[in-house]
Amino acid sequence: MKTVNIDLGKRSYPIYIGSHLLDKSALVNKHLHSNQVMVVTNETIAPLYLARVMDALKAPVTETVILPDGEIYKNMQSVNRIFDALMDLRFSRNATLIALGGGVIGDTVGFAAACYQRGISFIQIPTTLLAQVDSSVGGKTGVNHPKGKNMIGAFYQPQCVIADTQVLATLDDRQFRAGIAEVVKYGLIRDADFFCWVEKNMETLLARDDDALAFAIERSCINKADVVAEDERESGLRAILNFGHTFGHAIETGTGYGEYLHGEAVAIGMCQAADLSMRLGWLQPEEVERIEKLISRAGLPASPPESLDSDRFLELMAVDKKNIDGKLRLILLEAIGHAALPQPVPIEHLQATLSEYGR
Amino acid sequence: MKTVNIDLGKRSYPIYIGSHLLDKSALVNKHLHSNQVMVVTNETIAPLYLARVMDALKAPVTETVILPDGEIYKNMQSVNRIFDALMDLRFSRNATLIALGGGVIGDTVGFAAACYQRGISFIQIPTTLLAQVDSSVGGKTGVNHPKGKNMIGAFYQPQCVIADTQVLATLDDRQFRAGIAEVVKYGLIRDADFFCWVEKNMETLLARDDDALAFAIERSCINKADVVAEDERESGLRAILNFGHTFGHAIETGTGYGEYLHGEAVAIGMCQAADLSMRLGWLQPEEVERIEKLISRAGLPASPPESLDSDRFLELMAVDKKNIDGKLRLILLEAIGHAALPQPVPIEHLQATLSEYGR
Repeated sequence: MKTVNIDLGKRSYPIYIGSHLLDKSALVNKHLHSNQVMVVTNETIAPLYLARVMDALKAPVTETVILPDGEIYKNMQSVNRIFDALMDLRFSRNATLIALGGGVIGDTVGFAAACYQRGISFIQIPTTLLAQVDSSVGGKTGVNHPKGKNMIGAFYQPQCVIADTQVLATLDDRQFRAGIAEVVKYGLIRDADFFCWVEKNMETLLARDDDALAFAIERSCINKADVVAEDERESGLRAILNFGHTFGHAIETGTGYGEYLHGEAVAIGMCQAADLSMRLGWLQPEEVERIEKLISRAGLPASPPESLDSDRFLELMAVDKKNIDGKLRLILLEAIGHAALPQPVPIEHLQATLSEYGR
Repeated sequence: MKTVNIDLGKRSYPIYIGSHLLDKSALVNKHLHSNQVMVVTNETIAPLYLARVMDALKAPVTETVILPDGEIYKNMQSVNRIFDALMDLRFSRNATLIALGGGVIGDTVGFAAACYQRGISFIQIPTTLLAQVDSSVGGKTGVNHPKGKNMIGAFYQPQCVIADTQVLATLDDRQFRAGIAEVVKYGLIRDADFFCWVEKNMETLLARDDDALAFAIERSCINKADVVAEDERESGLRAILNFGHTFGHAIETGTGYGEYLHGEAVAIGMCQAADLSMRLGWLQPEEVERIEKLISRAGLPASPPESLDSDRFLELMAVDKKNIDGKLRLILLEAIGHAALPQPVPIEHLQATLSEYGR
């Protein structure tokens, strides 16, 4: 088992990475602070892993909430269902919520934990590659508003993250590939060596080789941990983690949550952001090609749907939360392995990129 | 103008106390970080003070949300109305919310600010005595759940608090007296001299003498600031601020939010907590009488409604969030001016107090 520590002073916590961690009773139990535990999962994950997690728990008052599966359920209604269950059981401030599932479950449960009685403990047990390398790490929690993704939420850190590589064996192929998008992202924004490693090992990763997965998850988490430790509440550096996300969020919102997986939308967004970086003279055309090629080798989409034209894209990007006072700022690449802090982007270059991809 | 500083490191902020501060344009404008400002108030306050606040603001993009008035609107629906308005206007992370109203508005707006885009700035302009001495200070924000008061919320600090004593002139008598309950509380829990001052000056306070009010608000805020600075997230000392509140919340929940004002319920709760302190041998009978007498002189109720019997009280108190693992802990007085940290209370003493007041 590997352990990556997120260094946030009093709010520091470990990420455990390895095979068959779900059954390790000692791991989860040492992070509980009372006998009141509620496991929240979804209808897809419950039959696969819920019983194993419940068996590992030693808390006598253990309850479950099973939400429907899907990004469309990442909303205030799901948060309210968790509040209702906690209130029905009269769970106290010392209770712990366990999020067993992908990013939707992790973000929703984390936000419920942040708000119930102004904050109770929670533990992340991410069951998708995307959640293991990204959404379960760093304390961003929240839900979607009908008019914008992740608009309602809190910065709130878990007690620990348990990333079991073995659960990825049952992950469907599309979900798995969506996770690869975020792995590629870490290479692009701050780790050129890792980008090269992913280029060399893409087929091994796609074959879900245990060692390759553990390495990719650890390296991704170390990169994320470094950034989050430096800027917990996204006042500066942390913004680079949103590389490709402003385009990606526009795609997700514009097509209705659920058509594109988050990682798929980010994969497209990273290609668009790379293209834009080239138009500003930062990236070479061959670097953009190299990025697009790796995205395609992962079986991920590299261009947006035809239904979203430039005007609609601009409208959708304007409400993205990376903006200050209406000026559009984007994270771009100076080179593979080097992202710059958010930059105000000349509208003509942005339109050129959107037109290029709107063919 | 008096200024009391809340010392919380990076999250420190000032409380301005004085007459005619609403019109002081310089005061509010120096705490804005962008040109996007939304003032949230209620139907009672809007016709009285909204125009004056709007006139004082120099931000060009200033919008308003006017909620219905009353504790029953301190809920997620009101928070969602604020989210919808912010999303409709595409307000960014640098926007500021201004809470113009009593505790309900302050708590609701503060929680919306804590969650919108994971946290935007907000400013408190409390218009009731209770909000000026208590709810606007200290960063507790949140709303009620149908099954419990203040169960959903966040610790989130404002940029500043502007307490204008002049707005108290239009406050209805019942609301004003409810605020006196919290003033009395500060004397009881940690400031015996202030308790004596309130005993001597009750009539002057009830006549809403400007100097007496400013003194009482300042002294209350200093007491609260000391406690909050030492324990921002209520892991220890801060619990003493809840003196009388476990009983009080039970009264509010048991009668349906709205029948009793918060301060009225707390006034009753403080009498019950004083009685219980006496049963444990901590307070003398004459001290309990002195407390009940001062509460009565303020025109506040000193005993609960007949509709709530002991059993119902116990049931309601069990879900209060000051409990750990089901054991009821209460804040009690060792003497007038000295509260103790939460204590597990023998059930027979609690039942004796409930019976005493259930006559």
